[in-house]
Amino acid sequence: MQIVNVEEVKNWLNEAGEFIKTSLSDTLEIKEKSNRTDLVTNIDEETQQLLIQKIQRVYPDDKILGEETGYNTIDSMDGRVWIIDPIDGTMNFVMEQENFCIMLAVFEDGVGKLGFIYDVMRDELYWGGKEAGVFRNEEEISAPQPSKLSEGLLGFNAYMFGENIHGSKDIANASMGIRVSGCAGLEMIALLKGNHIGYVSNLAPWDYAPGMALIEAFGFHATTLKGEKLSFDEREYFVAAQPEVHQEIVEMFKKNSSF
Amino acid sequence: MQIVNVEEVKNWLNEAGEFIKTSLSDTLEIKEKSNRTDLVTNIDEETQQLLIQKIQRVYPDDKILGEETGYNTIDSMDGRVWIIDPIDGTMNFVMEQENFCIMLAVFEDGVGKLGFIYDVMRDELYWGGKEAGVFRNEEEISAPQPSKLSEGLLGFNAYMFGENIHGSKDIANASMGIRVSGCAGLEMIALLKGNHIGYVSNLAPWDYAPGMALIEAFGFHATTLKGEKLSFDEREYFVAAQPEVHQEIVEMFKKNSSF
Repeated sequence: MQIVNVEEVKNWLNEAGEFIKTSLSDTLEIKEKSNRTDLVTNIDEETQQLLIQKIQRVYPDDKILGEETGYNTIDSMDGRVWIIDPIDGTMNFVMEQENFCIMLAVFEDGVGKLGFIYDVMRDELYWGGKEAGVFRNEEEISAPQPSKLSEGLLGFNAYMFGENIHGSKDIANASMGIRVSGCAGLEMIALLKGNHIGYVSNLAPWDYAPGMALIEAFGFHATTLKGEKLSFDEREYFVAAQPEVHQEIVEMFKKNSSF
Repeated sequence: MQIVNVEEVKNWLNEAGEFIKTSLSDTLEIKEKSNRTDLVTNIDEETQQLLIQKIQRVYPDDKILGEETGYNTIDSMDGRVWIIDPIDGTMNFVMEQENFCIMLAVFEDGVGKLGFIYDVMRDELYWGGKEAGVFRNEEEISAPQPSKLSEGLLGFNAYMFGENIHGSKDIANASMGIRVSGCAGLEMIALLKGNHIGYVSNLAPWDYAPGMALIEAFGFHATTLKGEKLSFDEREYFVAAQPEVHQEIVEMFKKNSSF
């Protein structure tokens, strides 16, 4: 018995995905948020609205935290909280019309219960949690083989790597290489599949919560660079990885950095 | 009338792709080449051998330049030359079992006539040239809308960006952002689709020749960072882009760098 009706949530995500796909032929209204490369479109906002309406109709007492205006702060993570990123990877959505995801998480008293990452254009939904297991569409998947930092690829935030934030380059250089996708959801999927062994970025709660609920089901960790609990109240430096790799990365950050 | 039998080449690539796919369940023999992150596998070598045998049987007088041992230098680009990258993105092949390509080019007296980039796991073959047109599988595609450096995404080599080679960071910062895929073929496909507007890297002839023949069919340019002709005889810094974007990037490199 899930804490929410998973099949219903999957239907909402499908509907949201269909809405986004049909919108691709329309002219997007693109606005800048904090700077010229931080974009939001009318489709981000309308998709969030669509999902909020669904949630509120069925779960009227639940709290909602979402990327777009009106829902992007929350008093606390107490109780049941839905966390929405209507289009994760908006830059990719605008520039590539692919490589973006719809993401949704259900948390209870600060603990990730269910995560959903829907790669819309590939029609691949990764969903699940600690109790449910982890699924790619209808198929349950198992955790990848454990690896070491020196033996795998890392997803990395380009700015953090380029500016060597808290010694990021040493961590990148200790791995087999970095990849930059511009989409937190795709990076979390890469962890679930074992394509990448870690992910270092600068993320807001809606960017990390859905993937966090999923990777924790495999025993992976998502924390600050110091290995501390994420705040869920602002953008912050973030590392997610397999347990051994997570420890290696956090130890290197602690050693290198000026925390 | 093509200079070679395109349908036959497509069959070779399909056969090579099938060989690689069936090999994914076997244990790979992985060797390091120039350093610990420069890998080659037995499958790279066997795929090159498969393609060389096909070419030599039908075109015994043609020259062959290929990534793996025995074929990686050539006296000159005179006459007809086949250029092979059996697995472009070997690191991705080893770590991800996806996001790699088989690539093939046909050059005549130094001019790219036909390029083939086969994204094996997505089963997408981009092929064509100036005379043939450009195709995704059986469907002809047309050049994307022209853009400006400030308006699009760049594929970028992580090392060049991180070390700010010849002022790479200024170019990255002038764009809408960078992406790092670890696969030249996927970057060239991103240019053909208009997902990215330029690509800056450090490439060997087999990495750039197939994509070059394809993007030139759209009037795009592939040159050194100074805008000069590529040598086809060693790894060198490389920029490929839509014409206006190419000019912007080359001018910035010339202004910034210590050439």
